[in-house]
Amino acid sequence: MKIAVDAMGGDNAPVEIVRGALQAVAEYGVAVTLVGDEKQVRAELGNCAATDLVNVVHAPEVIEMRDHPAVAVRRKKNSSIVMATQLVKEGKADAVVSAGSTGASMTSALLSLGRIKGIDRPAIAVVLPSEKDFTLLLDIGANVDCKPHNLFQFGMMGCLYAQKILGVDNPRVGLLSNGEEETKGNEATLAAFPLLQKAGINFIGNVEGRDIFRGTAHVLVCDGFLGNIVLKTGEGLAESLFKIMKEEIAKSALAKLGIVLAGAALKGFQRRIEYTEYGGAPLLGVNGVSVICHGRSTAKAIKNAIRVAMESVDNYLVDSIRDSITFAEKKEVDCANAQGSG
Amino acid sequence: MKIAVDAMGGDNAPVEIVRGALQAVAEYGVAVTLVGDEKQVRAELGNCAATDLVNVVHAPEVIEMRDHPAVAVRRKKNSSIVMATQLVKEGKADAVVSAGSTGASMTSALLSLGRIKGIDRPAIAVVLPSEKDFTLLLDIGANVDCKPHNLFQFGMMGCLYAQKILGVDNPRVGLLSNGEEETKGNEATLAAFPLLQKAGINFIGNVEGRDIFRGTAHVLVCDGFLGNIVLKTGEGLAESLFKIMKEEIAKSALAKLGIVLAGAALKGFQRRIEYTEYGGAPLLGVNGVSVICHGRSTAKAIKNAIRVAMESVDNYLVDSIRDSITFAEKKEVDCANAQGSG
Repeated sequence: MKIAVDAMGGDNAPVEIVRGALQAVAEYGVAVTLVGDEKQVRAELGNCAATDLVNVVHAPEVIEMRDHPAVAVRRKKNSSIVMATQLVKEGKADAVVSAGSTGASMTSALLSLGRIKGIDRPAIAVVLPSEKDFTLLLDIGANVDCKPHNLFQFGMMGCLYAQKILGVDNPRVGLLSNGEEETKGNEATLAAFPLLQKAGINFIGNVEGRDIFRGTAHVLVCDGFLGNIVLKTGEGLAESLFKIMKEEIAKSALAKLGIVLAGAALKGFQRRIEYTEYGGAPLLGVNGVSVICHGRSTAKAIKNAIRVAMESVDNYLVDSIRDSITFAEKKEVDCANAQGSG
Repeated sequence: MKIAVDAMGGDNAPVEIVRGALQAVAEYGVAVTLVGDEKQVRAELGNCAATDLVNVVHAPEVIEMRDHPAVAVRRKKNSSIVMATQLVKEGKADAVVSAGSTGASMTSALLSLGRIKGIDRPAIAVVLPSEKDFTLLLDIGANVDCKPHNLFQFGMMGCLYAQKILGVDNPRVGLLSNGEEETKGNEATLAAFPLLQKAGINFIGNVEGRDIFRGTAHVLVCDGFLGNIVLKTGEGLAESLFKIMKEEIAKSALAKLGIVLAGAALKGFQRRIEYTEYGGAPLLGVNGVSVICHGRSTAKAIKNAIRVAMESVDNYLVDSIRDSITFAEKKEVDCANAQGSG
């Protein structure tokens, strides 16, 4: 197994990316191809490049966060993300991992790898920690405006990911909405509801915003506009709460002492809500394995993303999605035919 | 000034509602009309009913949370929320406050009071605490699918509310979106952007989810589907974080001691993020003052909501919205005419 890693993507590139890749090599025995500015990458690698499991492919260009993804991917053919994705296309790598521009990762995957037959729109999924275990939220930004059929396919793909990669037997799939009742929702979710109901998955209906972090659903479906805003609202709120708490604690010596005493418990708390444990956001629906990481990813997050990419390959995620969508579409056609002849 | 209070609405009715109303009477010298089951309300009032500032209107029916709002408001003409709103319509009260079903409050207001001329859709606004001061988010549930023109009007109304009731001189108005750039957004927000830009308000453009609690914007505009989910995501996340933290702290005696020492600071923290301070969600765009409270409202939240209702009346909020919308529409027509003749 070989994973192509975009060594130049993310706020902490190439340092943390290279470190994370080396940790994955050491821990999982996987081979990695680091794609990026060869001089910088080799400087980071130091003596570690001596192993057969690490090689470097020089990419002279980088797609920056300020670049327009669709334009940049077409113009910067020699950028690290485009070249890394191309390795998967050419069969020289099994999967690609990047912490660079999400839009660039997605456009590269769409142009190089294409979509899985039957999938209209790929989606980006993210694993959020919850009180119980986790919630897989999708789409978090690939598709701003979604049709009911897209939401239905997100549910199918999310369900498979939860089964195959997150190890949940019969994942609860929910539709993110403004109320639990079947009558609640906007135009798109109201129309997606019956599609998901008939999908042959464990569809638990509408799920409210307050239930995301309770772990009510293993898989939570929404359009990419809503998903992006919900995800960032969560990140922002957690940051603001800790900031305000720190300000209040800083006012009192007693409180500072208290927090020192509570230190171990607070670390345990932090571990439980840490997103880096879950390792990146898979791009579901493209014809190959592509894992997108948070721009602020540390070495640990990169290592975990590589693990997720490996598991996706090992578990034939792409083939499973293709089969299940083909089956679902066939069932729909059969149903339509049966209704037509009835 | 007299405020009609729905004594039967909310999880803690009538106890906390009556208490909150009495606190408002004592603190602000306002008159209140408590609308609800007379026996229950009088029992709660005890000897306090002796003042001229408190009177009770008997309402034999209650709209329950499980009732369909639009149907229930039409059928239960003698319910507390319908009768309380009717008092405003008849000029027997200046404003109405309820912690019952949001949908019932809204439908009552729409049927009894009607919309302000020129406003297509009223919106529910909520004041969220932020790192700096607050963010007024609207709509949080009155309108699931919104047209660009609706979002524009929400921005205008929110701006006026921030000026007149929240005391901000030149409020920063933002559009909740999936990216800061002008090119980011869904169909509705992309089309609303130029409308808000030309509105003659301090429009700061798109604002991301992570900036809601930073206080980047004083007023943040979105459709009611998104607003509801964002609000509940925030509530749910805060609850889950505290729950996980408590679980971790409970594991260690040292941590428990630490939290006791940090107690005062944590109370200060709690005060800063406490929504009850801000007192209810105004229903903006109806032809009268209606303030909707959280179902879990305590006496303090009810008292603050009554204060908000008083300030809305004192500051001629309804007239201001009418004037500003008339002016905006006139400007649009003038622009169109000028372009037509140009």
